[in-house]
Amino acid sequence: MSKRAGESTIFLENNVMISSFAASGGKNEAKGPFGDCYDYKDADDLFGQSCFEDAESAMQSLTLKIALEKRGIEASGLSFILGGDLLNQCIGTTFALADFKAPFIGLYGACSTISEGLMLASLLVDSGAGDRAAAITSSHYCTAERQYRFPLNYGGQRTPTSQWTATASGALILERGKTPPFVRAVTVGRICDKGIIDANNMGAAMAPAAHWVIKTFLSDAKMSPQDFDLIVTGDLGRVGSKILCELLLRDGIDILDRHFDCGASLYGEEQDSHSGASGCGCAAGLLCGHFLPRLKSGELKNILFAATGALLSPTSSQQGKSIPGISHLCWLSSEAG
Amino acid sequence: MSKRAGESTIFLENNVMISSFAASGGKNEAKGPFGDCYDYKDADDLFGQSCFEDAESAMQSLTLKIALEKRGIEASGLSFILGGDLLNQCIGTTFALADFKAPFIGLYGACSTISEGLMLASLLVDSGAGDRAAAITSSHYCTAERQYRFPLNYGGQRTPTSQWTATASGALILERGKTPPFVRAVTVGRICDKGIIDANNMGAAMAPAAHWVIKTFLSDAKMSPQDFDLIVTGDLGRVGSKILCELLLRDGIDILDRHFDCGASLYGEEQDSHSGASGCGCAAGLLCGHFLPRLKSGELKNILFAATGALLSPTSSQQGKSIPGISHLCWLSSEAG
Repeated sequence: MSKRAGESTIFLENNVMISSFAASGGKNEAKGPFGDCYDYKDADDLFGQSCFEDAESAMQSLTLKIALEKRGIEASGLSFILGGDLLNQCIGTTFALADFKAPFIGLYGACSTISEGLMLASLLVDSGAGDRAAAITSSHYCTAERQYRFPLNYGGQRTPTSQWTATASGALILERGKTPPFVRAVTVGRICDKGIIDANNMGAAMAPAAHWVIKTFLSDAKMSPQDFDLIVTGDLGRVGSKILCELLLRDGIDILDRHFDCGASLYGEEQDSHSGASGCGCAAGLLCGHFLPRLKSGELKNILFAATGALLSPTSSQQGKSIPGISHLCWLSSEAG
Repeated sequence: MSKRAGESTIFLENNVMISSFAASGGKNEAKGPFGDCYDYKDADDLFGQSCFEDAESAMQSLTLKIALEKRGIEASGLSFILGGDLLNQCIGTTFALADFKAPFIGLYGACSTISEGLMLASLLVDSGAGDRAAAITSSHYCTAERQYRFPLNYGGQRTPTSQWTATASGALILERGKTPPFVRAVTVGRICDKGIIDANNMGAAMAPAAHWVIKTFLSDAKMSPQDFDLIVTGDLGRVGSKILCELLLRDGIDILDRHFDCGASLYGEEQDSHSGASGCGCAAGLLCGHFLPRLKSGELKNILFAATGALLSPTSSQQGKSIPGISHLCWLSSEAG
C-alpha cells in the first residue's frame, strides 16, 4: 500500500521504474541549446501532415511509437495510456492515440500534464492496477497560437512577458522493476489563483502553484533542496522563475543554485522567445529527452520535477477572468527506494 | 494490491464505499421524470451568477459543497478532487474548485468524466494513495451550445438525432469503509472511432465505446447481464441506445431488458429533446441523485455504470474529422466484495 505523508505527498511502495522514454521536437526546438536531446526532429513542424492540428497528433503518436520501440513492446503491452494536451477538448491526444487501441485515461492539466500523467501512472503501477502504463503529452506552436491568441498570419506583436509555445512531445513508460530511473514520491498539486489576468504573463500566474507544490513536498517529505541535484519546473519562463525563487526564499527555502526551468532554458537568447518557452511539450520534451537519460546514467542522482500549468481558456481570458495555476511534483531518482 | 483481470478490468482489494453524493439540476431537468432526484434545483439556470460560464462553475461548486455537508466534512478532509467538464480547457471545473484548496487532478473524458473520476478515485483510495477522494463533473446547456454549436440567440434548428445538453452536476465522495454503496470493479475504456462525423449524432459516435467496455467487463469478470439489476449508460440517447443493444446482441449479449440510458431517460417525451439528453451532468446527476440512493437503500443490488464521452472539439468538427468515443465502466453494488 502506498504511504501517504503530510498534506499531499505519496511515497511509492514498490520500485516503479521509467523503463522507456522518447522526445520529439520541431525546427525551433532543434535549434535551441537542447536541440540534440530529441529522438526525432521535424524540419517544417508539419510532421508529414497538411494541417497543424494533424501535425500535433502525428508528433505525439510518433513519440509514443519511439518509446514503445525502445522498450521493445507493442501498445498491447500497455495497461493504459494517460495523456492530454492544450487543444480544446484535448483533441490532439484523442487523434494521436486512437489507433493504439490501448485503455486510455484522458487528463487535463494544461502544461502540467506530463507531471500529472507521470504521477498518476506511477500510482496506478505501484498499486498493481496496471502492469505497465504510458504517460504522454504534446504542444505545437501553430495550434496553440491560433487557439489561444491570434492566427499566425495576423502577425500580432508579442509582449515582453510572453512565452513561445514549444512544438514538442514527450512520452514515457512506467512499470515495476529494478533499472533506473525510478519514481520515488509524488505530490498532488492544488489550484492556486493569485488574480493574475494577463494571458501574456503565464509565468506569474503559474509561479504560486509551483511554490506551493515544492514547499509542500519538502515539508511532507522532511527533505531540503540540498537533497536534490536539480529542482526542475515546467514553463515558468524567466519572469515566473524569478517569482518562484523569491516566493520560496520568503519561506526560507533557497533553490537558486539548483533551480532549472524548462521554459527559461529551451531556447537560446538569440531565438528571441521573450520570457522563454511554454506548452505541455516544453517540460515533457526536456524530461524525456534530457533529464531521464541523465538519471538513467547516474549523472543525476535525484531531481524534483514539477511541470506547471496555467488553467486559462480563450473564453475565460475574454471574460477578464484570472488565470489559476497548478503544478504536480514527482521525485525522480537514479536509486531505488 | 488491486487485482487485474482480463484485458482492462481491475477488481478493488478493499471495501471502497461511496460515502456521500449530491446532484444539482436546472429548470428543464427539474421538469423531467427524474426532477425530484436533485438535491438542488435552480429556477433560471443562472445559479445566482450573471453569465452562464460562471453559472456552471457555481453549480459544480454548490454540488460538491452539498456532498461535503452530507458527509459532515470540510474540503480539507479530501485527499484529492478529480474532475473535469466539457468547456474548453475544463475551465468550468477550474473556477468551481479553486476555492476548495484541495489537491486537484484534472480529467478530460467529455461526458464520460463521472465514470473516469469514479474509476480513478476508487483506485487511488483502494491503494491508499488517498484516504478520501471526490469525483465531480458538470455540464450546462447554455455554455455547451454556444461553444460546440451556435449561440442560443441564433435560434438554430435541431436535427432529429441531436441531444440536449443537461444543465446538471453530480459529485461523490469515496473512502474505505463498510457502508453501501461500494465500487467493486472498474474497466478502463478505450478510444473507439467508427468514423461517425455528424456532431449532431453523438449517440452513434459513442455507442461503439460503450459496446466495447460492457463486453470487455463481462468477459474480464466472467459475468453476465443477469448478474446486474441494471446496465446504465451515460448519454447515448435514443439513437445510440438502439445501436448499443444491437452491437451487443451480435455478440450474443442481450441487455435489452435491463439497459437504462441516462440520456434517453432524463427528459419526458413532451420536452421535445429529440434523441434525449447529453452532457457530463446528465449521467453524473442521475448517478448521484437517483442510482446511488437506490444502491444505498438496497433497492438496487448491482449495477454497471458506464458514462460515455464523445471526443470531439469544435475545431475537429469544422475540419470534418470523425468523432471518437470513450466509455469507462464501474461495477457498483449494495454489497461489499
